[in-house]
Amino acid sequence: MPEYWQEEIAHLSLKGGRFVSEAPKETRVDHERLRTLCTSILVGVRVPEADATVVANLLAEANLCGIDTHGVIRLKLYVDRIIAGGIKVEPEIQTVRENPCTALLDGDNCLGPVGGTQAMDLAIAKAANTGIGMVAIRNCNHYGPAGHYARLATARGMIGISITNTLASMPPTGGAAPRQGNNAYSIGFPASEEPAVVVDGATSKASWGKLFLCAQEGQDLPEDCYVDSAGAPTLNPQDVMDGGGLLPFAEHKGYGLAVAFELLTGMLAAAPLDHKIPHPYKKLDVPGDNTFFMGAIDADCFAGADEFKRDMDEWVRFMRDTPRAPGVERVWLPGEKEAVTRQERFEEGIPLGENMMQELRELAQQAGVQFDI
Amino acid sequence: MPEYWQEEIAHLSLKGGRFVSEAPKETRVDHERLRTLCTSILVGVRVPEADATVVANLLAEANLCGIDTHGVIRLKLYVDRIIAGGIKVEPEIQTVRENPCTALLDGDNCLGPVGGTQAMDLAIAKAANTGIGMVAIRNCNHYGPAGHYARLATARGMIGISITNTLASMPPTGGAAPRQGNNAYSIGFPASEEPAVVVDGATSKASWGKLFLCAQEGQDLPEDCYVDSAGAPTLNPQDVMDGGGLLPFAEHKGYGLAVAFELLTGMLAAAPLDHKIPHPYKKLDVPGDNTFFMGAIDADCFAGADEFKRDMDEWVRFMRDTPRAPGVERVWLPGEKEAVTRQERFEEGIPLGENMMQELRELAQQAGVQFDI
Repeated sequence: MPEYWQEEIAHLSLKGGRFVSEAPKETRVDHERLRTLCTSILVGVRVPEADATVVANLLAEANLCGIDTHGVIRLKLYVDRIIAGGIKVEPEIQTVRENPCTALLDGDNCLGPVGGTQAMDLAIAKAANTGIGMVAIRNCNHYGPAGHYARLATARGMIGISITNTLASMPPTGGAAPRQGNNAYSIGFPASEEPAVVVDGATSKASWGKLFLCAQEGQDLPEDCYVDSAGAPTLNPQDVMDGGGLLPFAEHKGYGLAVAFELLTGMLAAAPLDHKIPHPYKKLDVPGDNTFFMGAIDADCFAGADEFKRDMDEWVRFMRDTPRAPGVERVWLPGEKEAVTRQERFEEGIPLGENMMQELRELAQQAGVQFDI
Repeated sequence: MPEYWQEEIAHLSLKGGRFVSEAPKETRVDHERLRTLCTSILVGVRVPEADATVVANLLAEANLCGIDTHGVIRLKLYVDRIIAGGIKVEPEIQTVRENPCTALLDGDNCLGPVGGTQAMDLAIAKAANTGIGMVAIRNCNHYGPAGHYARLATARGMIGISITNTLASMPPTGGAAPRQGNNAYSIGFPASEEPAVVVDGATSKASWGKLFLCAQEGQDLPEDCYVDSAGAPTLNPQDVMDGGGLLPFAEHKGYGLAVAFELLTGMLAAAPLDHKIPHPYKKLDVPGDNTFFMGAIDADCFAGADEFKRDMDEWVRFMRDTPRAPGVERVWLPGEKEAVTRQERFEEGIPLGENMMQELRELAQQAGVQFDI
């Protein structure tokens, strides 16, 4: 197994990750204290305070929503890449092209959440003026949860679209070499009294995380989810690590959507396509070369913003009352579990395992800041 | 089995439908003659010639591209609905709201291809001015193939997005009653020398067509694709017909996308949602109540239109050269099979089975026009 994989396995399988959710949760940490600690650690490695706050906010929000795989567990990756020179802490984000409803930005190798947030904020501002804003930003690093950016738009009463590319890991249908990334997408719709409906996903059938866990535990992979380097199905994690890949969900349908997301990001921004994106853990010292696509739509140009949100409330309640299949406790709207988890963790704190706590302690020490959560 | 289902089975299983592609193809019909015949038949039932041409063009293009389930096999549905009063032949399509890059239109119960084409043409015109055009049109009828509209944009060098809602047939994850339609979507990307890349699909795992065929042939349904009225998996077509439904592809991921497409159409247009849309075959005399969402994006506002198309060419060739999995003859780009089929049928004619020919003969007779293909 290559060294960087062991690193990623060790990293992602820290207790607190979503796919090891059966691990004991040792400590409940207040989200504000976690935000403050992450901000301090990032400032400690020379990230300007405003940017550090943006990144810390994204990480803490991911944990609050239960998306622990994209929460503070990623802080070490960001810090390691900053120290190795793979991420610029004081980027000059440039506007390459702009008109009233579109923009192409160059992130100058910025932290992903910094570039992503700036791009979505710009899309929202444009949509407030023209009804639509679409912004692509290239030359960024690790995105975080796609849904985070869609929620920036829904919080402003707009429909939000958020897409990232990522390094190639999935062969096309019938292919035997990775070509598309497990590209992530989100689209969110604001409601009035009900939580926003936020569709948030990635294009593979099963995740890298699942693979890492099977490798670590010596278990077979789930069937029909992974292929070896010849493009043949495999149950052996090692086959995947030796040049194999993930399969897209729903066969050619997932392949098609992964292609669409690759083209709406890298191709639209004249930036590296999925197969040219380096591995962020393996190549700590080179730019991540990710491109993000952000869209905001103001329903006021269509149904009317107030009518839209009111109709959303009514429809959410109708959906929630759908008769249930045998053994099912609740029919969930997309994004509703995250909203419920957020409410619970906002009040009770974010559960972090001892390994995660230890990693934060070490990051704090490395950055020369006090560990106080 | 309800009568309208028998009608739909009989209708869809005419030779020439995609899911009975093993049926003998009796006649090769020149696409121009087929266009002319369809136009004449529609004019014969009082559709204005310009609109009849638009509809005939969509149907013939679907057959040319090999999407026979959405080609001339649907002409009888359109004619029957016109005669029954379910579709207006001289609609007054109205602009409800409009700004430089968005519009909401009301189709006044028009033929789907008429409203859809007008909406996409408007989106393209807006994108030519502002970089982006997004147009929703409500109060329309049967859409046709989603990819047709995306190709209207790619033919103009733009990225095209095309979405329709449809009557509810899929329960949400964990639910036991249909709530979302098998909503169809397409997104197309223009290239220069290579054919456009066009992702075109619907959100269910298996189709109604497959169900009809199993019912007709007395076969079991494929596993994990259909549910009964209690939301439990079933292999029995009758269970699905008695209030069951289709399952979305990739479980909650397909559910999420079906929701996103429902909200971008009916909800955004303040129009009926999927569960309020009537069955177009069952209710011939009532409006179809479909909403379409059309988007066009001018790559000139991002990578630059010429650079985008040139990079697309290079990438298409790279993708086509992907090493192949065992037993695979060719790795296809999304939409490439349609482009190859179109070329072949453009030259050799469109294969139509004898039942399909007979139906066209009867439609011609009914409309009082000469059957001359």
